[in-house]
Amino acid sequence: MMKTENTVWHQQHISKTQRSQQKQQRPCLLWFTGLSGSGKSTIANAVDALLFARGCHTYLLDGDNVRHGLNGDLGFSDAARIENIRRISEVSKLFVDAGLIVSTAFISPFASDRTMARSKLQQGEFIEVFVDTPIEICEQRDPKGLYKKARNGEITDFTGIDSTYDVPKNAEIHLHTANLSVEQCAQQIIDYLVQHDFINANKQG
Amino acid sequence: MMKTENTVWHQQHISKTQRSQQKQQRPCLLWFTGLSGSGKSTIANAVDALLFARGCHTYLLDGDNVRHGLNGDLGFSDAARIENIRRISEVSKLFVDAGLIVSTAFISPFASDRTMARSKLQQGEFIEVFVDTPIEICEQRDPKGLYKKARNGEITDFTGIDSTYDVPKNAEIHLHTANLSVEQCAQQIIDYLVQHDFINANKQG
Repeated sequence: MMKTENTVWHQQHISKTQRSQQKQQRPCLLWFTGLSGSGKSTIANAVDALLFARGCHTYLLDGDNVRHGLNGDLGFSDAARIENIRRISEVSKLFVDAGLIVSTAFISPFASDRTMARSKLQQGEFIEVFVDTPIEICEQRDPKGLYKKARNGEITDFTGIDSTYDVPKNAEIHLHTANLSVEQCAQQIIDYLVQHDFINANKQG
Repeated sequence: MMKTENTVWHQQHISKTQRSQQKQQRPCLLWFTGLSGSGKSTIANAVDALLFARGCHTYLLDGDNVRHGLNGDLGFSDAARIENIRRISEVSKLFVDAGLIVSTAFISPFASDRTMARSKLQQGEFIEVFVDTPIEICEQRDPKGLYKKARNGEITDFTGIDSTYDVPKNAEIHLHTANLSVEQCAQQIIDYLVQHDFINANKQG
């Protein structure tokens, strides 16, 4: 079946540019990365809510809607881990093509995976957001008790304990969460989007 | 990494209902099915253009944007074929969750696969569109020369030649393309969406 589909856009195809203009925004991908418990999803949801309130068209991909659905067949091997990030980046690309500002909130600990994701998007569309929370704070929060389990050896390959987290070297946005509230972190991202003309300064819903 | 994500929505989460209200439409999935050369992509693009012109927020998934991206790792085995449709349905579900009216244009010859896709969406959200073009017409058009190759045995497992197409029994929309223009087919779908309150009767872009 797939072999019978060609790969040429049809004449009437609505373009990414048209979809962007309709939504009065420049689509992009906010790629949140950080340790477990760093606040990725919380901040991503806060940004999403702020953007929505401004009338922007957005979507958020995280473990909640991806893990049991699209990536429900993937385990935790290295190959599965890479495939997980690959699919997330491909789906994000489709959402950007649809004209949306899409956020992803996954630990994504390896620089190679983040580079792969970045490479799928056009120049400037991939915005890496480093949620820089010291592991001591993440471990202190430990909302899911995972650090405790990792320390006890009940779970392995846990990022920051017995698996590496590659600190982003050139993230577009670096959030020093230890000194900021969730609201301040979210606002820093909104400011970036305004400054780089992804959204209008005064857009209202 | 995935194992560290929980599966509870965060407090600030913007809901599907909110996204739908923002876009002034009820999101749904138009699942086009039909033989190679039946006109699925052409009609789906025509519908997309009409919806866009009305100010609706849409997206179209077909071989062009899915085959080399998200499903670029899949071959043509039975397992790959099922996985292909599974991923397309999961991604469609995410787009519907984002509030969009999404169309998919894949042959999807087996009723079991279409039933699987339907089961992932909420009641009424899955709209099966049977692009009913007689195989004689498809083969006469043969825009990609695939029927000829299949008749010559150069390609195998070709739907309608040496692989089954399960004719939809209860498609929400049945397009008898032999008697209709592309525009008439597209309008039939728009009428369905209006009649079932997915879009406003008089919505303008």
